[in-house]
Amino acid sequence: MLRIPAGKPVDLASCDTRATPAGPSGKAAGVEATARMGERLADLQERLWASGTAGDRRRILLILQGMDTSGKGGTVKHVIGLFNPSGCRIKAFKAPTAEERGHPFLWRIMRALPEPGEIGIFDRSQYEDVLAARVRGLVQHRRLGGRYGQINRFEQSLAEDGVTVVKCFLHISYEEQRERLLKRLDNPDKHWKFTMGDIEDRALWPAYQEAYEIALERCTTDAAPWYVVPADRKWYRNWAVSKLLLEHLEALDPKYPKADFDVAAAMEQLLSQR
Amino acid sequence: MLRIPAGKPVDLASCDTRATPAGPSGKAAGVEATARMGERLADLQERLWASGTAGDRRRILLILQGMDTSGKGGTVKHVIGLFNPSGCRIKAFKAPTAEERGHPFLWRIMRALPEPGEIGIFDRSQYEDVLAARVRGLVQHRRLGGRYGQINRFEQSLAEDGVTVVKCFLHISYEEQRERLLKRLDNPDKHWKFTMGDIEDRALWPAYQEAYEIALERCTTDAAPWYVVPADRKWYRNWAVSKLLLEHLEALDPKYPKADFDVAAAMEQLLSQR
Repeated sequence: MLRIPAGKPVDLASCDTRATPAGPSGKAAGVEATARMGERLADLQERLWASGTAGDRRRILLILQGMDTSGKGGTVKHVIGLFNPSGCRIKAFKAPTAEERGHPFLWRIMRALPEPGEIGIFDRSQYEDVLAARVRGLVQHRRLGGRYGQINRFEQSLAEDGVTVVKCFLHISYEEQRERLLKRLDNPDKHWKFTMGDIEDRALWPAYQEAYEIALERCTTDAAPWYVVPADRKWYRNWAVSKLLLEHLEALDPKYPKADFDVAAAMEQLLSQR
Repeated sequence: MLRIPAGKPVDLASCDTRATPAGPSGKAAGVEATARMGERLADLQERLWASGTAGDRRRILLILQGMDTSGKGGTVKHVIGLFNPSGCRIKAFKAPTAEERGHPFLWRIMRALPEPGEIGIFDRSQYEDVLAARVRGLVQHRRLGGRYGQINRFEQSLAEDGVTVVKCFLHISYEEQRERLLKRLDNPDKHWKFTMGDIEDRALWPAYQEAYEIALERCTTDAAPWYVVPADRKWYRNWAVSKLLLEHLEALDPKYPKADFDVAAAMEQLLSQR
């Protein structure tokens, strides 16, 4: 995965969607390496959760963005599946409801944030409001332009409240998307994942890539950097997102809190009961 | 696990907490059998979810109740961990907040219900309002008495809306709880799971057992039966809850929905694009 540096134009066409930077040598090794990370991830998650019960406000927010079929749902299944589900707060954002449209675009985002000790996962996010909204011309140009700054200020305030924001753009190629959509059409058990809207969005591919480039460029900050994850190879995508989460959890280094009661006295009481 | 029959008094003391009814022969076989159920559970969950996208309102609500250390959290970790986390809606109920106390006791329950296609999991539930509330005398006797009927009518309405309610009482012995609490006290990494309140509640063990007997007797209905799961053996508890979920999912027999678009035309369009 590539961390987008601040202050430079982003050129997605120059990012190879089949690349495996810093990754294992192949699929078998990648799947195994990801599984091996599972235990360490779950251990760190329990420490983060435990620490949260003692007043630590830190938490993680993983934001997954990408074109249709880029594997947002697959990442949740395979990577978040490595964690204890009780500590995960997953939210998939769809087209805004009437109620959501009646509020500022960040309203529904705030309501879905992880609580202290949790790992939050957004499948789509506030970025849809500068992606689909831009490509489909859903808002006036001036309002759209203001949203990037609003998002940056919002994410800055999250960071100040103890939220580690990890934003991943799952990057697939136009050809890979065609393959994946054809595969869905080829299997009746997968038809439910397909809508004709997928083909309409696909016709807007260049506009979406441009909208992503603008969003990644304007909203990669120290508080909340963007990562581009080459995602044509699913095993690499899962490995890379797991690795990113592991690095961030290790940097947090959460500790089990010390007992706020007298352990010896509690033991004695327990042993003397009845 | 034992399904509580309607209209008979419940005697928890006569249910052996170390029993393994209908279960595998031992721990190794039990762990393996549970893991083997995982694939089938995940497959049925995907079908349920897929069916939900096409208007099927059916869903599952697993309610976990039990004394401290009975393994509610462990069940979520080990059993719910077998599913795709995106389709699970997990809620752990704590002592009611000031806002929750300002509403009828079912208010916070309604807000946490699974949506169509989902598997909802309650770690504690509306039953706390006839358990802790009864034992600790938090409500007037008359109001308490009315709650059993309110719960039954509520669960009946859930069933009518497509919710399969599966209620499990994780049954451990007084001695087993002592062992588990001592183990927590013995390991500094587990101290965060312990509070002195655990010892206070333990002193009320007989009153809690009685409150459970009353709740199980009054609230086991055709719409939402209670199951007693012997839970001194963790491997059996995990196997039994997995098995119950599997049986209920198999009975629902959810199907992948048929395409509501012209598959051949979609394929052609995809192949002709650009």
